[in-house]
Amino acid sequence: MISETAKLVKGWNNILVISHASPDGDTLGSAAALIRGLKSLGINTGFACSDPIEKKFEYLFEGLSFSEFTPDKIITVDVADANLLGRYKELADKVDLAIDHHLGHREYAKASYVNIKSAANTENIYELLCEMGVSITKEIADAVFTGITTDTGCFRYKNVTARTHEIAAKMILAGADAGRINQVMFETKSRGQIKAEIAAMGSIEYYEDGKIALAAVTLDMMEKTGISEGDIDALVSVPRQIEGVLIGITLKQKPDGNFKASLRTNDPCDASAICGLLGGGGHKAAAGCSVRGDIETVKGKVLGVCRTYLESAGI
Amino acid sequence: MISETAKLVKGWNNILVISHASPDGDTLGSAAALIRGLKSLGINTGFACSDPIEKKFEYLFEGLSFSEFTPDKIITVDVADANLLGRYKELADKVDLAIDHHLGHREYAKASYVNIKSAANTENIYELLCEMGVSITKEIADAVFTGITTDTGCFRYKNVTARTHEIAAKMILAGADAGRINQVMFETKSRGQIKAEIAAMGSIEYYEDGKIALAAVTLDMMEKTGISEGDIDALVSVPRQIEGVLIGITLKQKPDGNFKASLRTNDPCDASAICGLLGGGGHKAAAGCSVRGDIETVKGKVLGVCRTYLESAGI
Repeated sequence: MISETAKLVKGWNNILVISHASPDGDTLGSAAALIRGLKSLGINTGFACSDPIEKKFEYLFEGLSFSEFTPDKIITVDVADANLLGRYKELADKVDLAIDHHLGHREYAKASYVNIKSAANTENIYELLCEMGVSITKEIADAVFTGITTDTGCFRYKNVTARTHEIAAKMILAGADAGRINQVMFETKSRGQIKAEIAAMGSIEYYEDGKIALAAVTLDMMEKTGISEGDIDALVSVPRQIEGVLIGITLKQKPDGNFKASLRTNDPCDASAICGLLGGGGHKAAAGCSVRGDIETVKGKVLGVCRTYLESAGI
Repeated sequence: MISETAKLVKGWNNILVISHASPDGDTLGSAAALIRGLKSLGINTGFACSDPIEKKFEYLFEGLSFSEFTPDKIITVDVADANLLGRYKELADKVDLAIDHHLGHREYAKASYVNIKSAANTENIYELLCEMGVSITKEIADAVFTGITTDTGCFRYKNVTARTHEIAAKMILAGADAGRINQVMFETKSRGQIKAEIAAMGSIEYYEDGKIALAAVTLDMMEKTGISEGDIDALVSVPRQIEGVLIGITLKQKPDGNFKASLRTNDPCDASAICGLLGGGGHKAAAGCSVRGDIETVKGKVLGVCRTYLESAGI
């Protein structure tokens, strides 16, 4: 119950808010909105994340100042699994509250508020802040809107509910700069990214009668086009969009040579179940995992698991 | 005032509803929602459009039956200019009511309801139907949602207001199949379309220090990739998305060899003003026009007008 969670947090001070590693708009939007809300109630708050924040998300924390303190309480936001805390993993059993929206949330915190009906975790944060009596400033509205729009592919995915749109409307009325945020998140590409898209789309291979489409972006391609890892994020939705494709796979080579696999699936396939077999996780339609090896090895591993899944599911 | 428009229409019968030529999701969603609403009030209604309806929009009219009748009244929906009526242009001075949302609406009807704050014209139609006491069925909700999502690039463009999201929320509650509609409109590509995207993105040329980006899709490219004209619609947003670009141009060759130019602009440029100089029109951020000639002639004409615009605007 959100009311119980609100009561709990209202009694706390010196709270460290932690986002998941490789932070996205929802975990950062959740952290920024929560921190700003708590600070407005006079609660001292800090922030931690295992990985650096991409430049395009920096506005979320603009104007916030943090002083050094020893945390009395720890809240994680949008963190489905202790492993996703990255270098803060050792703090997992000290987490007092996990606020999350992932279907596959694996409990690790002393208390949890997990609402899987929320398309974005910032919907949960918004609910919590309202329950705590926080007034929604423009900055909080920007942060809540950022989580919603990034975790729904700009209101495109099937996780969007009427409530998602209702909250988006409220955030715009509260001053969220929706048009600008969407432009930054979805409408701005470097010339290098355009080249990367051409290369990634050109790399698409089809398997299992076109039920699987696989795109791969290697370090070599990234170097040639001058794009960063983050630049590739928008590409992961492409393979699934192709007619007849049930499982869309994007392989992205990491600096250490190993790969991150991003899966996007159409009904009835479950990306989270497939990635679970490879030690990863996520949502039904969108999940990910890390796979070790060179490109051919990784393709073999991922396609093998997909084939096993399709077979066992009788698809 | 919408209340006056509602009163007007309530007194009518045997109404012909006309969509604009080269119909899109908003003009067709407007027509389908209006027709279904009027029929539910016992008002006999017909439909006309100068061009065929793409297969992906056919669900809007599913289950509707029309009997032959002589119209007593004519309503146009989303038709900014009499020229956009196509082969129904001769009816322009017989139009009793125009319901539209275009900034550059040129009056031609006996009465007009033009609300330029509406991101989609289906927002106006929804308002009208509510005012007329129509109960919003799943089919009407699907039609209203279709107009909204297609005219906002799935809630991405800057024309989206809090009201846009509020209506979207209401449509989902009324049964609109938002996820499926978004998937059909934005997430389904043929393998040929992927090839076309690669070709179109590969064709991008930059002008005026990168302020202008131009992509061109010729009949030859379309033939090679096996894609239809409609398949290219999603491409028109790409050139504007590139960093530093103020005017994104997509040229699409028509079966007669001439071109349709689709312009997408970033602030402070005005696509509608530029296309106006070439005999077309539209919105500030999205407009279009037809240009006669071969590819090099058309490029020259469009780029010439863009350069003149940038110069005169001091950009």
